[in-house]
Amino acid sequence: MSLDAVLSRIDDDLPNALERLMELLRIPSISTDPAYHADCQKAADWLVADLKTLGAEAAAHATPGKPMVVGHAGDTGPQLMFYGHYDVQPVDPLDLWHRDPFDPALEETDQGKVIRARGSADDKGQLMTFVEACRAWKAVYGTLPARLTFFFEGEEESGSPSLIPFLKDHAERLKADLCLICDTGLFDPETPAITTMLRGLLGEEIIITGSSRDLHSGAYGGAAANPIRVLTRILAGLHDETGRVTIPGFYDGVPELPETLRAQWDGLGFDADGFLGDVGLKHPAGEAGRTALEMLWSRPTCEFNGISGGYAGDGFKTVLPSKASAKVSCRLVGTQDPLAIRAAFREMVRAQVPADCTVEFLDHGASPASVMPTENPAFEQARQALSAEWPKPAAFIGSGGSIPIAGYFQSILGVDSMLIGFGRDDDQIHSPNEKYNLESFHRGIRSWARILDAMT
Amino acid sequence: MSLDAVLSRIDDDLPNALERLMELLRIPSISTDPAYHADCQKAADWLVADLKTLGAEAAAHATPGKPMVVGHAGDTGPQLMFYGHYDVQPVDPLDLWHRDPFDPALEETDQGKVIRARGSADDKGQLMTFVEACRAWKAVYGTLPARLTFFFEGEEESGSPSLIPFLKDHAERLKADLCLICDTGLFDPETPAITTMLRGLLGEEIIITGSSRDLHSGAYGGAAANPIRVLTRILAGLHDETGRVTIPGFYDGVPELPETLRAQWDGLGFDADGFLGDVGLKHPAGEAGRTALEMLWSRPTCEFNGISGGYAGDGFKTVLPSKASAKVSCRLVGTQDPLAIRAAFREMVRAQVPADCTVEFLDHGASPASVMPTENPAFEQARQALSAEWPKPAAFIGSGGSIPIAGYFQSILGVDSMLIGFGRDDDQIHSPNEKYNLESFHRGIRSWARILDAMT
Repeated sequence: MSLDAVLSRIDDDLPNALERLMELLRIPSISTDPAYHADCQKAADWLVADLKTLGAEAAAHATPGKPMVVGHAGDTGPQLMFYGHYDVQPVDPLDLWHRDPFDPALEETDQGKVIRARGSADDKGQLMTFVEACRAWKAVYGTLPARLTFFFEGEEESGSPSLIPFLKDHAERLKADLCLICDTGLFDPETPAITTMLRGLLGEEIIITGSSRDLHSGAYGGAAANPIRVLTRILAGLHDETGRVTIPGFYDGVPELPETLRAQWDGLGFDADGFLGDVGLKHPAGEAGRTALEMLWSRPTCEFNGISGGYAGDGFKTVLPSKASAKVSCRLVGTQDPLAIRAAFREMVRAQVPADCTVEFLDHGASPASVMPTENPAFEQARQALSAEWPKPAAFIGSGGSIPIAGYFQSILGVDSMLIGFGRDDDQIHSPNEKYNLESFHRGIRSWARILDAMT
Repeated sequence: MSLDAVLSRIDDDLPNALERLMELLRIPSISTDPAYHADCQKAADWLVADLKTLGAEAAAHATPGKPMVVGHAGDTGPQLMFYGHYDVQPVDPLDLWHRDPFDPALEETDQGKVIRARGSADDKGQLMTFVEACRAWKAVYGTLPARLTFFFEGEEESGSPSLIPFLKDHAERLKADLCLICDTGLFDPETPAITTMLRGLLGEEIIITGSSRDLHSGAYGGAAANPIRVLTRILAGLHDETGRVTIPGFYDGVPELPETLRAQWDGLGFDADGFLGDVGLKHPAGEAGRTALEMLWSRPTCEFNGISGGYAGDGFKTVLPSKASAKVSCRLVGTQDPLAIRAAFREMVRAQVPADCTVEFLDHGASPASVMPTENPAFEQARQALSAEWPKPAAFIGSGGSIPIAGYFQSILGVDSMLIGFGRDDDQIHSPNEKYNLESFHRGIRSWARILDAMT
């Protein structure tokens, strides 16, 4: 009876919910680029004001980086924390967008209506599914279903430098029985998912410096060290012929997949050809002898995310550059130790830098993998609630991406997390023309209402 | 007796010669910038008028680009062509100049008097050394020492797009027994040089494409091909452990240095430590077992001039890029065939591109090395003439850079070239505050008088 009233309210209020989301999407809160610092503050303030309309005590807490939004509402029931992030990825290359990334619009596509904007799927649209579920609940009941803590971060896309100190400093006010994290996806458009394995992430930048200035390749070529050559040789040595990573000790703590989970994954009927085919690829490119789902969910990687050096404009310039650099990231699984891998990586790189070059490392974050406690009854309650909302039953899945926050909640706050999200594989997060299906937004709001109902 | 009269005349006339050079330096003939097109025409016209004062038949020949100045003078003796270029490099960054680049002045420095202006060393000052030598000869003898063709180009700093068609169209009127090119430098301030080996240049760009769009390294990492990884592996394979280039057939046509030349080069006392130390380096980085001068002058190279792919801005972006690209250039020596090497390079690269990636190549030019026919008696005559003028004996040297004109004169006109110039390493050509030592100008003029005397 009453859940139905909340679901009806959600349906009726959808146009307003959409308008609120678009307001938030118009704020270009790119956390990695200092030029958008004020916009990150603005997004945080917008969320504080919105939480207050739910009756929450809320504030944007200053940090050395972007503000943390924390709100509290509700007096009875379990203490649940909800986490999302309000910062977004950069938008370059801008010329590949077919509209202004910060001028959101509802567009008709052959997959139905989509909300087109940077951050629509990652993560503002997802974040707002929970807020809107609470708003509808409050409108129907006049109260909230549990003691809720809203925790919205503004540095998720830039390595979360302020997160650990903030969690430590505010551990008391962030205590909860369980954390709900909305930053993941559906298994497929009809199958909702609870993500129970998340890869960790180690981010490193290598900068190789040779000569004290750029040189002419005619005058110096042959005799002067070339940092691009040094760098490419180092990078090329990070994988062996079978695709395994060669950093010493890299596979310490990488477990084999349990047979029960392997059987469940095999039953999902994952369409590797379709998954890769959607982006113009055909062949799983990871370790030999592994399935595509293993490569994505349960095997570690070492990827090159960016490289630069010398002249990269049109035409040609016969320069020997003074510097070359690369951004490298490792996705981690099981109990791989990010700091031990960082140390081994740096030692391995240093050993290959010739006498005339120097190497500098930039630390772009390190977080271990997370494996969720699926024996907690909340997982089965949520699975049934999701199964009621969507066409197909919900699945426990892995995720290739890293949501380090789940690990920090566990290690710093002692709080387990349940990851539920409504993104689709084709949402183009981190890419031009990011979108969030209207169905994801609508059913996402309804899903949280059902989950809150099931858990309280 | 008579050479002495010419040399005296040169000494006496130096202030006037300097004033003429400054007139030419005041014309901002920047060929690469269309805004200076009329100035290039003006510089060409100035040269035509000046050649006419020597009694030459001269004209500025229109091309689709900048005019070619051609003048003929003298009725007896060998047919000699003299080449220089009247166009100059752009002057930016202008704020690093300590005076207007087109307001030349004679400045006192701790290296003696210098002529400060854009183009003073590259190449107007050098070009005028030959013209002034002829002027003094004519003043003393009333005639010129040989049948002379003056050929002044106006596109040398912008890729010489009109050169090949012009040489083909005017092959008859440009025929000569030998070409004298004045666009190179001294070996050191006391040691004049005849450049007898010039490296060729092959320019290639490789673009590796994987997925049809940039991907999230969490969502796709492990399963999707990474173009940076493909590219770095290819580049890393282009040199073996000893620094040799691995392109099949690359060393075909690379001669060992003749013992006589090796002995001469050893005698030059090249300061490799100082040369590399000036740019913050210490160790010659080329093939094992080669001297630094060999690496620079007589060994081929394969250098990486630029690389790009993925996210290269501040911070970090966990992207798997769709594309990665590199600019690669080979300096060529001996009879290495640039087109055969290009074909072998492309075949080698293609063989390493995995099934899920494609490769595209851009052609950035190909010119073979030039090796001058030092057995032509003119080379020994010029060496002795230069040795008489300068504090130390002249050397036959190589040059790491490429001066394609010598190759074109050989292949299109069938004319060998002798490269003699008076620039110093610290002339800052192509950079702010370009200068030409007054000694280079004065002894340069005297050197040409001695060389013409020795050859005729």
